[in-house]
Amino acid sequence: MHFIFTASRNLASYRLLEKGRQGCVKLRIASHRLVDTTLMSVRGYLLIWVPHKAESACISYSVRVCFSGEHYFPDTNFPSTMFVGILAVGALLCQLSVALDNGLARTPPMGWLSWERFRCNTDCKNDPDHCISEQLYKRQADLMVSEGYRDVGYQYVNIDDCWPAMERDKDGKLVADPIRFPSGIKALARYMHSKGLKLGIYEDFGSKTCAGYPGSEFYMQTDANTFAEWEVDSLKFDGCNSDPKDMPYGYPIMGKFLNMTGRPILFNCQWPGYLVGVGIQPDYAAVRNSCNQWRNFIDVQDDWVNVLKIIDHYGNDKDNSSAFAGPGGWNDPDMSDYRTIAKTCNIWRNYVDVTDSWDSIVDIINTYGKDEGNFSAVAAPGGFNDPDMLVVGDFGLSYYQQKAQFGMWALFAAPLMMSNDLSNIRDEAKALLQNKNIIAINQDPLGNQAVRLFEVPGSISVWVKKLAKPGSRAIGVLNINNQGTPQKYTTSFSDLGFTNKKGYNVREAFENKTMGSYGLDQKFTIYVDPTSIFIMFADPQ
Amino acid sequence: MHFIFTASRNLASYRLLEKGRQGCVKLRIASHRLVDTTLMSVRGYLLIWVPHKAESACISYSVRVCFSGEHYFPDTNFPSTMFVGILAVGALLCQLSVALDNGLARTPPMGWLSWERFRCNTDCKNDPDHCISEQLYKRQADLMVSEGYRDVGYQYVNIDDCWPAMERDKDGKLVADPIRFPSGIKALARYMHSKGLKLGIYEDFGSKTCAGYPGSEFYMQTDANTFAEWEVDSLKFDGCNSDPKDMPYGYPIMGKFLNMTGRPILFNCQWPGYLVGVGIQPDYAAVRNSCNQWRNFIDVQDDWVNVLKIIDHYGNDKDNSSAFAGPGGWNDPDMSDYRTIAKTCNIWRNYVDVTDSWDSIVDIINTYGKDEGNFSAVAAPGGFNDPDMLVVGDFGLSYYQQKAQFGMWALFAAPLMMSNDLSNIRDEAKALLQNKNIIAINQDPLGNQAVRLFEVPGSISVWVKKLAKPGSRAIGVLNINNQGTPQKYTTSFSDLGFTNKKGYNVREAFENKTMGSYGLDQKFTIYVDPTSIFIMFADPQ
Repeated sequence: MHFIFTASRNLASYRLLEKGRQGCVKLRIASHRLVDTTLMSVRGYLLIWVPHKAESACISYSVRVCFSGEHYFPDTNFPSTMFVGILAVGALLCQLSVALDNGLARTPPMGWLSWERFRCNTDCKNDPDHCISEQLYKRQADLMVSEGYRDVGYQYVNIDDCWPAMERDKDGKLVADPIRFPSGIKALARYMHSKGLKLGIYEDFGSKTCAGYPGSEFYMQTDANTFAEWEVDSLKFDGCNSDPKDMPYGYPIMGKFLNMTGRPILFNCQWPGYLVGVGIQPDYAAVRNSCNQWRNFIDVQDDWVNVLKIIDHYGNDKDNSSAFAGPGGWNDPDMSDYRTIAKTCNIWRNYVDVTDSWDSIVDIINTYGKDEGNFSAVAAPGGFNDPDMLVVGDFGLSYYQQKAQFGMWALFAAPLMMSNDLSNIRDEAKALLQNKNIIAINQDPLGNQAVRLFEVPGSISVWVKKLAKPGSRAIGVLNINNQGTPQKYTTSFSDLGFTNKKGYNVREAFENKTMGSYGLDQKFTIYVDPTSIFIMFADPQ
Repeated sequence: MHFIFTASRNLASYRLLEKGRQGCVKLRIASHRLVDTTLMSVRGYLLIWVPHKAESACISYSVRVCFSGEHYFPDTNFPSTMFVGILAVGALLCQLSVALDNGLARTPPMGWLSWERFRCNTDCKNDPDHCISEQLYKRQADLMVSEGYRDVGYQYVNIDDCWPAMERDKDGKLVADPIRFPSGIKALARYMHSKGLKLGIYEDFGSKTCAGYPGSEFYMQTDANTFAEWEVDSLKFDGCNSDPKDMPYGYPIMGKFLNMTGRPILFNCQWPGYLVGVGIQPDYAAVRNSCNQWRNFIDVQDDWVNVLKIIDHYGNDKDNSSAFAGPGGWNDPDMSDYRTIAKTCNIWRNYVDVTDSWDSIVDIINTYGKDEGNFSAVAAPGGFNDPDMLVVGDFGLSYYQQKAQFGMWALFAAPLMMSNDLSNIRDEAKALLQNKNIIAINQDPLGNQAVRLFEVPGSISVWVKKLAKPGSRAIGVLNINNQGTPQKYTTSFSDLGFTNKKGYNVREAFENKTMGSYGLDQKFTIYVDPTSIFIMFADPQ
């Protein structure tokens, strides 16, 4: 027994906020019984729980359906349009479940992002060179070109929070702060394009951005259209001032709206990071075990059937009574399923914000090392896990630690988004950011994300990233020990689980130094600096 | 009622270990009753508890007396020589209580120490340039001269652990590892002297050094004499493999032996750091309230009287029964009294080892900011608190963090002991280590240790160090926030509690930039980089 419907129109274009109504409804759908649930506003849509008696072995499960309508519906009086609306949005969700292929992020995107370094500094009066303004982005863009960053692959210049005016215009459209962005965003985008660069912008899934500027809640399609009109090339979509449980449904809607604009806009989702932040942990194994048709939805009917199958399979609830909305009910393992995310987003954050500190870097690296739910497996052309910005060239990392961040991010196939001041950067940091070998590891077309082979806690860990060239690998040996002196590490390829019987040709990556050829069982020794990394290429002989 | 004795001979020259005996004794002293106590071996001496009925208002107190003798004494049969011995060593302790004035450390010592950077790397076969060997110290010494470190004040080249052979010679004397130090320590000392430098060496109060090499227990006078014979200029005396409760008695004995050699040897004690490590916290206020004669001992008789007075006053024990040895009994607040320490040592560690990490630096700075027991007050010419080595020029600190460590250590009037590889150091680190303004703050003849005026947790803290020039101060504004962007800080001298009505002339210290003259109430603004420091000189107008 499944829902089988056809959408009558795109109901998503209605915004609930303008109607000013939220509340509880009881809802009967087709042959199903009444549902008592909270009717929630989610990014301008209504979300309701629909209990559904399944034909499967499961006793029951809950279904979450997007809904949008012009009216507030009292408990007992549903216009028939609403019924259609619910089903239509259900269908919309299914359409979003096809793999995201907007032609972007075939390799990890590279660029610059203002947040970590410049935060929400809006004090252009006292600090004109460092405040969030069009001048800042233009200056960084100029330097990306003149200092060679563009030519090694850095392309996006990304605005972060604090760029808009505090109020939308009379049509509900976002407006850039008129004092700090007097030329407007479209002019800034065209400036970037004239330099061979791309412009990224920032918005938030919630009612306000993290810094309190207008959020996209109730305005998602409007904002998507605005960004396209402004010729923006990337959107970082943050998750402050919203309920993370809404994200698995709301982010795909924004992704849909972006796609609907017809402009290729790289979609950078903060979504899974917020889910992890509230303790929702993906269950990848289960998803993979039963969702092998996930990528193969074709028509609305089949799509919806599969959505229900999946929801059925992963629902935590075991009886109808718990099908009503409640905190526990939202913790379905599919909510932050990275395969779903990868179908909506080009890059997605999955952990806390980076800070300009070695502790932060180690913490993020450890999270990637644990790889809970095997999220490394979803990294592939079109979509990559994002461990957050590079703080190379900033205040908090030693040169050796900067090598470690840059090297690890390259191994992770992570977006290489600098957040620094390119007008005031040490030569050694610049050289690091432009190291062609390390960038090549990051940009390898296979898009594989390195996994941790093993670690000695507090000391050495070994990471391996598959490269497109058959049998080739990039190997990182990270040393997090801060006890002053380099760590001696002796190993062989067979020790590392490599299998090519003829052995490997080995080259140190940062300095591009040939280390030699080693038989499979032949021991070799490296020294790894404290809080730093040693990276080598291994090619089968 | 006091002990009044005269020592018949220097019993300290006898070593218990060679007699191979330890055990319990009961001991009657003069009119006092029998004492049942553990006879402990402490650095080659016997320590016993002697209960003593005081004339003062205190009910009772315990007295710990050093003893050394040729014989093991069974419970009931004391040769009269032992009695004399006990009292003689009691007298010796008193002599140690005069202020240490060996002419050294009139300002914080400056130099280089191998530990943090080179640790116990003894693998000269595979890593000849970085192993603990005479070549390492000679190379660093050469660089201290050729690269200008000596000329700005760095003087000591200090050997740390892992220098000795594993066995003493047939006379019980220490021997340098013959492979790594083929020329011996005396030749190395003379090498340093020929360069206008000084040589420091390392030993341990316990049975073994921290790395397992022979300790000074049972050999303190022998080792003191050896170091003097080798023309060594400084001794770092560590505390591994010993009981911290022995330190307040044992370290002064080593200090005495060093002084007895007639060679000025800077005495670097790890003592209070170990006490703090086992939870023994000094009570400075109490000591200062009643020990105003502490510095004024003249003859043996009066010395001992005063020792007893002090012991009386600070003893935790309230009746005779607890006068017997026991763990609690050792936790007298005077045990790690920094005034006592300052009379024995030129510099002394009072917290955990530094590591090559910003966390470690912040942790140490916070400890100095808390200033528990007001230990900052004892810093003065002749004796300084030691927050441990500088890791400037190493792997774990960014340039900005290196500025913070160097600046804070200067403000602390801390020993400036580099632990780095001078043959492989970035220019910016070298320039920092040779910054004359910062060194001048450190070497200011007043020897004042900066105290924390206030802190905003996780953000700004303000530190003030009095300078010898009347009314002048060095002011440090530390920013431990790692959130990317410099911290704006606006203040005035009256806000900071300064009082000169005419205001102050202000100069930034690192770059030696004149900032201007400010009235007492006039606001001024600085920006402090993340995880870094801003230091200014303030001179009264």
